[in-house]
Amino acid sequence: MTRFALKICYVGTRYHGWQVQDNAVTVQKVMCDTISNMLKQEVAVTGCSRTDAGVHANEFVCHFDAPDKIPENAFVNGLNSVLPEDIAVISCIKVNSDFHARYSAKGKNYIYKFFDAENRNPFLANLAYHVTRRLDENLMNEFCERMIGKYDFSGFSSIKRTVTDTVRTISECRVERNKDIITLSVTADGFLYNMVRIIAGTALDVSYGKIDPSDTQEIILSKDRRRAGITAPAHGLYLNHVIY
Amino acid sequence: MTRFALKICYVGTRYHGWQVQDNAVTVQKVMCDTISNMLKQEVAVTGCSRTDAGVHANEFVCHFDAPDKIPENAFVNGLNSVLPEDIAVISCIKVNSDFHARYSAKGKNYIYKFFDAENRNPFLANLAYHVTRRLDENLMNEFCERMIGKYDFSGFSSIKRTVTDTVRTISECRVERNKDIITLSVTADGFLYNMVRIIAGTALDVSYGKIDPSDTQEIILSKDRRRAGITAPAHGLYLNHVIY
Repeated sequence: MTRFALKICYVGTRYHGWQVQDNAVTVQKVMCDTISNMLKQEVAVTGCSRTDAGVHANEFVCHFDAPDKIPENAFVNGLNSVLPEDIAVISCIKVNSDFHARYSAKGKNYIYKFFDAENRNPFLANLAYHVTRRLDENLMNEFCERMIGKYDFSGFSSIKRTVTDTVRTISECRVERNKDIITLSVTADGFLYNMVRIIAGTALDVSYGKIDPSDTQEIILSKDRRRAGITAPAHGLYLNHVIY
Repeated sequence: MTRFALKICYVGTRYHGWQVQDNAVTVQKVMCDTISNMLKQEVAVTGCSRTDAGVHANEFVCHFDAPDKIPENAFVNGLNSVLPEDIAVISCIKVNSDFHARYSAKGKNYIYKFFDAENRNPFLANLAYHVTRRLDENLMNEFCERMIGKYDFSGFSSIKRTVTDTVRTISECRVERNKDIITLSVTADGFLYNMVRIIAGTALDVSYGKIDPSDTQEIILSKDRRRAGITAPAHGLYLNHVIY
């Protein structure tokens, strides 16, 4: 047996996230079933992270073990011909048997898309968070810059979190406007539960003048979830890249 | 009563085109029902063209008559708050009572999107025609340039067409590559049934070397549907702009 690592891309709208759960369609379930079907044996597929229902992935990494003799490209072409149209395999490589999609990851980059035109755009429904007030990308960037660093980010995580170590290092955080789409990009060595969605929601509150960007560090140090902004909706969020 | 003209935008995937038909969900049916509901009276909505099932519109124009006193903006906001997420109103203006969305149109611009990366892209499923062989935009443009002019385009229309005058003037026809997306843009004073999809299919055959672009005029003049290329699938096609 050899370990294979797959990069996949998916539109999360129809799925209850990655992780298998009872009575819900998840991306992990679809990948397990499809690979197991192809190999005619039960295969366990392990992902680089859980994602929430409705969250998308430009590049999600998962691994599984399969007979050595199967060429990598057989997984790309074979799976792409049978997977549903909202999931596609980007690449497949053989990796060392100690590679783990989740535990080997050194960091991740997420993006969050806001759309701030006056009217809805049907082509962006479920793919960007539509806000009807114009956003101020300069003000948002003043906040973003101050999020960079090594901090206990427990104030920027859902109280549903299960981890005890809540210190993370954000190495990149910025927004960029392209016409009516504002893209927030955040890179860190790891993320707490809902962390990017809360950063996105706080950037929104900064743009609306509800939070002063100069208070950012104080809000982080308070470790008080109530000081940060709302949890922005899942459908604007994309797991963009995993660093190994 | 006053005549109102609406610009709408829709993702055509879920719809059997614009035109009302029995036992099928169409954009016209949704617009009629939604406006009638809003005004609490039967309203007829007339569109600028039929579109095939699965065809999209960046800007589709339709008209209807409603009481004079209703402000234009009430239709934009009111309809956008109740229309399904794959249809949105872009703008609404009051027009003369002799304005007709279809008969007043002086021309239309359609675009056709090809996607030629090796693997599928879930974010483009149903929004661009995926071809796995790399396209040659220069060769395609050699064909496109020769499509410009006033001709009897009956060879570039479905035999299902109902009109008798098959002369049309194409004023613009070109392709442009943006990464893995090739966009074909065609502007004419009018289009025959399936005309853009057949032009797109012929451009594809030109790129594949099956048709020599220098034969374009001969193919047009032959008026023989069999000389042109395939009818490219509906989901790559967008009604982009209507000229009045």
